[in-house]
Amino acid sequence: MNKPLNIALAGLGTVGVGVIQLLHENEDIITKRAGRPIRITSVSARDRNKDRGVDLSNYRWVDDMSAMAGADDIDIVVELVGGSDGPALSLARSALSAGKSLVTANKAMVAHHGFELAQLGEGNECTLKYEAAVAGAIPIIKGLRDGAAGNRIDRVYGILNGTCNYILSAMESDSSDFADVLSAAQARGYAEADPSFDIDGVDAAHKLAILASLCFGTKINFEAVETYGIRGLMAPDIRQAAVLGYNIRLLGLAEVDNDKQALFQRVQPYLVKRDHPLANVIGPTNAVVAEGNYSGRLLFQGAGAGDKPTASAVVADIIDLARGDKGAVFGMPCEQLREIIVAQSGDRIGKSYIRIMVADKPGVLAEIAAVMRDANVSIESLIQQDAGQKDGEALIAMVTHNGPESAITQTIETLSNSDNMVDDPMVMHILGD
Amino acid sequence: MNKPLNIALAGLGTVGVGVIQLLHENEDIITKRAGRPIRITSVSARDRNKDRGVDLSNYRWVDDMSAMAGADDIDIVVELVGGSDGPALSLARSALSAGKSLVTANKAMVAHHGFELAQLGEGNECTLKYEAAVAGAIPIIKGLRDGAAGNRIDRVYGILNGTCNYILSAMESDSSDFADVLSAAQARGYAEADPSFDIDGVDAAHKLAILASLCFGTKINFEAVETYGIRGLMAPDIRQAAVLGYNIRLLGLAEVDNDKQALFQRVQPYLVKRDHPLANVIGPTNAVVAEGNYSGRLLFQGAGAGDKPTASAVVADIIDLARGDKGAVFGMPCEQLREIIVAQSGDRIGKSYIRIMVADKPGVLAEIAAVMRDANVSIESLIQQDAGQKDGEALIAMVTHNGPESAITQTIETLSNSDNMVDDPMVMHILGD
Repeated sequence: MNKPLNIALAGLGTVGVGVIQLLHENEDIITKRAGRPIRITSVSARDRNKDRGVDLSNYRWVDDMSAMAGADDIDIVVELVGGSDGPALSLARSALSAGKSLVTANKAMVAHHGFELAQLGEGNECTLKYEAAVAGAIPIIKGLRDGAAGNRIDRVYGILNGTCNYILSAMESDSSDFADVLSAAQARGYAEADPSFDIDGVDAAHKLAILASLCFGTKINFEAVETYGIRGLMAPDIRQAAVLGYNIRLLGLAEVDNDKQALFQRVQPYLVKRDHPLANVIGPTNAVVAEGNYSGRLLFQGAGAGDKPTASAVVADIIDLARGDKGAVFGMPCEQLREIIVAQSGDRIGKSYIRIMVADKPGVLAEIAAVMRDANVSIESLIQQDAGQKDGEALIAMVTHNGPESAITQTIETLSNSDNMVDDPMVMHILGD
Repeated sequence: MNKPLNIALAGLGTVGVGVIQLLHENEDIITKRAGRPIRITSVSARDRNKDRGVDLSNYRWVDDMSAMAGADDIDIVVELVGGSDGPALSLARSALSAGKSLVTANKAMVAHHGFELAQLGEGNECTLKYEAAVAGAIPIIKGLRDGAAGNRIDRVYGILNGTCNYILSAMESDSSDFADVLSAAQARGYAEADPSFDIDGVDAAHKLAILASLCFGTKINFEAVETYGIRGLMAPDIRQAAVLGYNIRLLGLAEVDNDKQALFQRVQPYLVKRDHPLANVIGPTNAVVAEGNYSGRLLFQGAGAGDKPTASAVVADIIDLARGDKGAVFGMPCEQLREIIVAQSGDRIGKSYIRIMVADKPGVLAEIAAVMRDANVSIESLIQQDAGQKDGEALIAMVTHNGPESAITQTIETLSNSDNMVDDPMVMHILGD
């Protein structure tokens, strides 16, 4: 038998424990597939005495996490600590500097520091693996880096946050309001006590920035992701979208314009036509679509989070390393990754959904129509109805024809100044073909 | 720049030409991702003089295909000739014997000779790559071999033949009969002039046998695939299934029973619940579901055939080889692949759909009901109606409760001997959770 791959495992939360369990439960098949035994040598976490339900007595406990990588009996480091900076980043830097490849599930760290870490790996003949950082169990990183490697990909998009998708599909099936579904999701463990990273779109934005770099061969640029969450969504939005033939999904969408050498990245609730595969993805599931110029549309779908699915992705990376794969982190050497400009979203052409809450009195619709005419926005469909709002208020929901987003922005700015608006307008875009 | 990877390309049909075009059109990005230039050195095909719409003048023409691999300026061979034996197999053997890795889109050859070829590769420090042999552009081989490598997978199933899926979804949307849709599909190029490999399930069976080996770590066993096609389907079957909440899809399904060490593989039209992702896959699309014990259900979907999608998969394999990946062909070394028994399909428990055409006269339903009672088959729902059949004939369609398939087989055998049957009964199984 070949010599074992020795692992230092940092972070013993649910995913870390899942990795220990998976390596144990599937040891036989993993050894065959990896071509050698995979052995955890040392572990580290904040609290040594916590009962985690797994036996840690065979592993060396290391108090100083960032010192783990230095040990001679360590081949690779698995970082499941989390957080974009702090101990996770220190450990990543020390491991890669020491020539030890790093496996991580840490989307925030990769989104913020992935390029630096990739360079560090390249310089030290090791690599950074992050399958588990995007879309849980779905092998989307390998699917794009290896499976779609021959393609120019100009667009990638998907459902990247299971919590939001759980909430949106529950709002759909129960006709409930956002706040009620969120409380239920928290009670069932589908949403964190502080859910802001999920519901404000930040988690999806981390993942989108990673996917964009990998698909387009661009330097990762998390700061440029336009990020909107789902807090502002109301039950009537879901209903109106349904009447018009759409389901609402929080999507991350990135596109590259090769003529302008410009990168567009946005996380936002989108209206998705009901016959699109993403419209029918329900619960805490993730799904990613990549459009290659030869492959056509590829769809990858699966569990987006959870200890076992995430452990599955972490172990896949470990097996890659055991097999000797040290391929380029973002699909090509760092020096080949392009730095391109950020696209002007106002230039984007598409259909938009606009929902406005107005005072229910004569002339309001005329005012709105005039504002839209002046901004050159033409309306494809409009519904005004009492949707259970307070007395004296009405809800107007409309879908525009194709047009530049800048015209929508202008419309919203003008309308926001009107005395007849009783709440901020809500704009969502419609996923184009 | 690193030294180029030199390719011999055998077979210049639509896929071969697609590979030439893809390598040219995406040369820049492919070179970056592969880490080195990829260069076609020599080509071979039956007819040298045919106009294929691409310039072949830069490549050395080789008349004797099986001699291609011997040239010193060849690193790998790409086989796009087709056919399970004959020139394709000769070429594959000569390439792998010479230590040149082989990339192929040839599902028939891999299904019949994959194990032998994998051994040959192992013995000569090269490998066999066959991403394009299963599910077109979808990176299902890499997704399972690498992405799901940490999982024990006990079930894999999917839509593996685009022609059949095109026909079935057209029958669904147009309420047409099989024969009419087949003619239309042939006219549009979605079905071959001789469509039997597709519509009789053989093509899907090739792919299923490959997937089963990869997922379960078993020796490939194409002969053991129970194979049924879609010729017998009638428009009323589609309608009755729809009434009961199902769409009909030709699925390949393989399961391993680890207690009995038994392998089940079947290609057959299945009834798929309308809320299952596979039920909504329409047109010539493929989709594969693999269920891992940690990943949960993974779904991969995309274009199942065509020159560009298939070229995308071929080139992904070429890039793998350019990067130095020589991993195990079926996910683990050949000596680790198990040879296990073939499962008895009669022991399988599930629901079945049975359609019978009977003489429309008193007592027939009572006869059927008695036969089913005697075989201990209990009926969940039954529809008897005049579905546009000939005078004096009636169609009875039913779905059974869960039960062993052997009871269904017994029922069908008994009924087939009845004078009241005017056609062979049609049995399809229902995809379980």
